[in-house]
Amino acid sequence: MSATATDVSQTTDQRVFNFSAGPAAIPLSVLQEVQAEMVCLPGAGASVMELSHRGKIFVDIIQQAEADLRTLLSIPETHEVLFLQGGAALQFSMIPANLLKDSQKTAQYLVTGTWGKKAIGEARKEGEVEATFDGSATNFDRIPAEGDCKISDDAAYLYYCSNETIQGVQFPTPPAAPTSVPLICDASSDFLSRPIDIANHGIVYACAQKNAGPAGLTVVIIRKDLIDRGNENLPGYLLYKNHSAAESMWNTPPTFGVYVLGKIVKWLLNDIGGLDTMAKQNAEKAAMLYEVIDANPDFYKGHAQADCRSKMNVTFNLPSDELLAEFVKEAATHKIENLKGHRSVGGIRASIYNAMPVEGVKTLAKFMTEFAAKNS
Amino acid sequence: MSATATDVSQTTDQRVFNFSAGPAAIPLSVLQEVQAEMVCLPGAGASVMELSHRGKIFVDIIQQAEADLRTLLSIPETHEVLFLQGGAALQFSMIPANLLKDSQKTAQYLVTGTWGKKAIGEARKEGEVEATFDGSATNFDRIPAEGDCKISDDAAYLYYCSNETIQGVQFPTPPAAPTSVPLICDASSDFLSRPIDIANHGIVYACAQKNAGPAGLTVVIIRKDLIDRGNENLPGYLLYKNHSAAESMWNTPPTFGVYVLGKIVKWLLNDIGGLDTMAKQNAEKAAMLYEVIDANPDFYKGHAQADCRSKMNVTFNLPSDELLAEFVKEAATHKIENLKGHRSVGGIRASIYNAMPVEGVKTLAKFMTEFAAKNS
Repeated sequence: MSATATDVSQTTDQRVFNFSAGPAAIPLSVLQEVQAEMVCLPGAGASVMELSHRGKIFVDIIQQAEADLRTLLSIPETHEVLFLQGGAALQFSMIPANLLKDSQKTAQYLVTGTWGKKAIGEARKEGEVEATFDGSATNFDRIPAEGDCKISDDAAYLYYCSNETIQGVQFPTPPAAPTSVPLICDASSDFLSRPIDIANHGIVYACAQKNAGPAGLTVVIIRKDLIDRGNENLPGYLLYKNHSAAESMWNTPPTFGVYVLGKIVKWLLNDIGGLDTMAKQNAEKAAMLYEVIDANPDFYKGHAQADCRSKMNVTFNLPSDELLAEFVKEAATHKIENLKGHRSVGGIRASIYNAMPVEGVKTLAKFMTEFAAKNS
Repeated sequence: MSATATDVSQTTDQRVFNFSAGPAAIPLSVLQEVQAEMVCLPGAGASVMELSHRGKIFVDIIQQAEADLRTLLSIPETHEVLFLQGGAALQFSMIPANLLKDSQKTAQYLVTGTWGKKAIGEARKEGEVEATFDGSATNFDRIPAEGDCKISDDAAYLYYCSNETIQGVQFPTPPAAPTSVPLICDASSDFLSRPIDIANHGIVYACAQKNAGPAGLTVVIIRKDLIDRGNENLPGYLLYKNHSAAESMWNTPPTFGVYVLGKIVKWLLNDIGGLDTMAKQNAEKAAMLYEVIDANPDFYKGHAQADCRSKMNVTFNLPSDELLAEFVKEAATHKIENLKGHRSVGGIRASIYNAMPVEGVKTLAKFMTEFAAKNS
């Protein structure tokens, strides 16, 4: 099969509103650029997938991606950017392996959902941990109340997940940590959706497949003084200092993922106009759906408490399993796809990352209102 | 920018003969299919990059990729296929972490080049290792002579790298191990280039970016009785049993890489006709270049001994640095690109993986003959 103009234009019309929790929607203009360059990157004579990671063309791509990311997130010179593999799951181990193991300290975790729980599980293998907050008693519907968590000045670090994709619970602002304690953020599912104060964090990391690119790329933004803490005897891939010394080329990085991330960052800078604008748009999209939930309190039951509702993943349930199934089925007739909640929570999860167009959210909000009216 | 028919046809003409050692050439027909489906995978309403890894469409893709790989390589039911991240570099640690650590045994390594050397370095952190063969004294130009290596019946495993990309040294056939000793093969750079007896191996693994797909995907083919050996206290991502139990979805797999690998495997099955044919074609391509080297013994100096010359990476040097630079420069005028050898060996490395067309090798062979005649 070869690519023709007909293929390309036909397929654009066939696109649905994709509410997948991740891997998730990518801006259409980015996909079209990737498509145009797939067989031959301009000036390269080859696909970006075929280029040596050490050649000038790819080195320019990775350096430009980092430079643009630094601009977009206002990353200070105190922090390095690493492009790694292994997803958040490998960071669950790399963070305690580098910063907790052999430290004689305790790492404090705020467990606000499934991902925080997995993270502390891996950390426990490496050293002393404390679940300073654990939301499991209320099925992870909230974040800790202000002043609720005592963070020791001597903690190895304070860890939180800024947005719990499965439960739809998001920290509106980062939790407070003493200045002596590195603040570590798993930003996997709200990375690049709003500004984040990098200077205030020891590590901010994210797998790419929500807002930043394809699955298989992990971005780690790490304060320089934390890089060298890992013991030389750790598996080489797990040592931040190896990746740092080699500028993310300790081994072959996921080159295609870095290339797509670079385009998404450019889209955020140039087409959207930066993260303040993106955050405003995301807040408006989320508000449309939460308004429908609040307007139909006997029909839709939101999962998260109002003060920590996620602007990325809107989670709610319906009065019965039958109505839930009907909701998903009817939604598909409006090109609304991938709404089913994670199997551990059930219900509906509408993921409305950066690349979900306003039109898609409007379509869903309208459908929700009509569906509630028809079935109440 | 949007993709049009003009973009596509223009860019195909601009493609060069890409002799990159990896990431490396991908079959043009595969790139064209990926291009046609980039914005909207038929039936999915979205790009493959935007699909949930747990949705039916991607699950079908990964299962079909595995099924086709099993057909192509005749993988027996005794072995599982895992799709992981982290490259060969992470396998350097995962293999000893799972199979050597706490075993009270010694792992034996045949070190025939840079990659074997890196692998044994990581293994040393996990347990007792022995370099049963070490080719460093002759700058890694050979493999062990038959009968040269004593493998203990009680070794944890016997490890080798079937093709050393940097030195251009390849095992024509796997080394012999006692049946009690799992044979472990790093096949990163000759995976899918020829048949390999999987049943005879404990593990055959490969990063994808030579013959099997984009960087960021690692294929691990592992005998089922070896999967459960890792200690529960290892970092979760490093435990083969986690990935096995979750059918490569312990975390989000590199979905785009799996999708491209699936297409490359189909190309090998349907367009090429299987690995016997592919191996024959690869042998013919390599012979064209080695013939020119042997015909000009005072001009071209091959790096590898004749009995273990790689059919994937043809490494040689020229009489002077000036001629080397001129060779690379002139080659580019014939659309011959990415010839420079790895910085640790120098000289020329022409990587002629599966996707390098015969025409590209013929063009290089002709150029080599003319260049030698002109400059001898």
